Amino acid sequence: MKLIRFGEVGKEKPGILIEEKRFDVSSIVTDYNEAFFENDGLEKLKKALESNPVLPEVDASVRLGSPVARPSKIICIGLNYVDHCHETNAPIPEEPIIFFKSTTALCGPNDDVIIPKNSEKTDWEIELAFVVGKKASYVEEADALDYVAGYCLHNDYSERAFQIERGGQWAKGKGCDTFAPLGPFLATQDEIADVNNLSMWLTVNGKTFQNSNTSNLVFKIPFLVHYLSQFMTLLPGDVISTGTPPGVGLGIKPDPIYMKAGDVVELGMEGLGSSKQLAVAYSK
Amino acid sequence: MKLIRFGEVGKEKPGILIEEKRFDVSSIVTDYNEAFFENDGLEKLKKALESNPVLPEVDASVRLGSPVARPSKIICIGLNYVDHCHETNAPIPEEPIIFFKSTTALCGPNDDVIIPKNSEKTDWEIELAFVVGKKASYVEEADALDYVAGYCLHNDYSERAFQIERGGQWAKGKGCDTFAPLGPFLATQDEIADVNNLSMWLTVNGKTFQNSNTSNLVFKIPFLVHYLSQFMTLLPGDVISTGTPPGVGLGIKPDPIYMKAGDVVELGMEGLGSSKQLAVAYSK
Repeated sequence: MKLIRFGEVGKEKPGILIEEKRFDVSSIVTDYNEAFFENDGLEKLKKALESNPVLPEVDASVRLGSPVARPSKIICIGLNYVDHCHETNAPIPEEPIIFFKSTTALCGPNDDVIIPKNSEKTDWEIELAFVVGKKASYVEEADALDYVAGYCLHNDYSERAFQIERGGQWAKGKGCDTFAPLGPFLATQDEIADVNNLSMWLTVNGKTFQNSNTSNLVFKIPFLVHYLSQFMTLLPGDVISTGTPPGVGLGIKPDPIYMKAGDVVELGMEGLGSSKQLAVAYSK
Repeated sequence: MKLIRFGEVGKEKPGILIEEKRFDVSSIVTDYNEAFFENDGLEKLKKALESNPVLPEVDASVRLGSPVARPSKIICIGLNYVDHCHETNAPIPEEPIIFFKSTTALCGPNDDVIIPKNSEKTDWEIELAFVVGKKASYVEEADALDYVAGYCLHNDYSERAFQIERGGQWAKGKGCDTFAPLGPFLATQDEIADVNNLSMWLTVNGKTFQNSNTSNLVFKIPFLVHYLSQFMTLLPGDVISTGTPPGVGLGIKPDPIYMKAGDVVELGMEGLGSSKQLAVAYSK
């Protein structure tokens, strides 16, 4: 299944995507949230759809929200692509680097990305994200995929000055509002033949900056579930973003390139669709 | 008002504390969560209590939970005590150091603290926390206290090896389950005469390790609300913990002291009550 959420910000309803057509499943499901995943919602929804219920079609013009409701946490992995390590001459990390992104950053896949006040270094990061399907604590790597609900496209926007030049941890530059456009949809595991071989691309104003494949991931999803669950309990609906390949603005030689209002960022991943964000300046 | 939540883990009900006696207010309020604070719940509760409704008393033996429901985020401030900077010969930070604590770490003030599997360096940190009362984005320092619902005692437990020796960011050592005992209660602003002059203490097995006063805070609450709201939207019910004074296990000379199963940590702050955690080893 491909799960979507559609409608106004904060009032999204659950839906599904079938061969590019969108259908409203709010008569079957309340929302794609912690309770949904925890109570075996994916299996129940699949079963309900097998009886071919009449579902209202949703117009293609309706806004898409994040395919999952606000989770308890968004965890991101740093420096997790072999090609990115090579490009920057960084050693391949011995164990994953992890950080949190504020969940208030979550937004729809095609929402505007707001360049924060006083930002001069807003940057893009295409990433493969996965959604946790059930409560995970001290999970063995061999069992880890039982804890995964599915996969999404994610753009881990980052303000590099806030992240790196403002003292200490990365939190300041990762959680700005609209810095986590997720989707267009959540693909359940059965939709993706090989999650470790998905090509991906990101363009800014039509020019390609990122172009890689999940085959370059240093730490793959089963290990990440195992690893993260040693440090904290992952809850159903939590979003884990697996890191970005080379080609972010910060890495451009000789001079980094950052975003300005009016820029259009487009990104896509094999099997997970594409998204598009227009950069706008913050205004109240 | 002094707000409490009581009952079994995950099934807590809202209550209030009046002169050491606990009362159930679940007939008036659903929970102390984002919706409560967002919809002027504090004012409505205060008003409802003015008519002296008959409230069931709650026995002192009933478990206390965190005084607020799981928030969208727990943000902590690092190195925010003048005396702690002096002790460690660290310069006073030019701007706040911030990091996230996983919200799954939240627990009741007197719950056992679980020493994680493979932990050898679990440590304590008494802190003054505050709870956000309304949505805050780009708030001026002069208006900041309008965005504060009240204050709580917090123990920001930290696994120092996970935090510092496992690559990169602090996230791994801050968010372990039970690492954020909050409470016993949330005191609304009117309960605290001067939040910048609260003495505090922490003992382990009866021996005092931390002993300071919020007068030593480098960055005070109004500035923190202003500052954090430049980087992300704070939501009603969010918990911000303002940093710890000297005396954590990591700082003990000549050798750091860390926790072992059976240790008892007790802490208290003027006007905010006290809490007590028994350390237990993780067991499944």
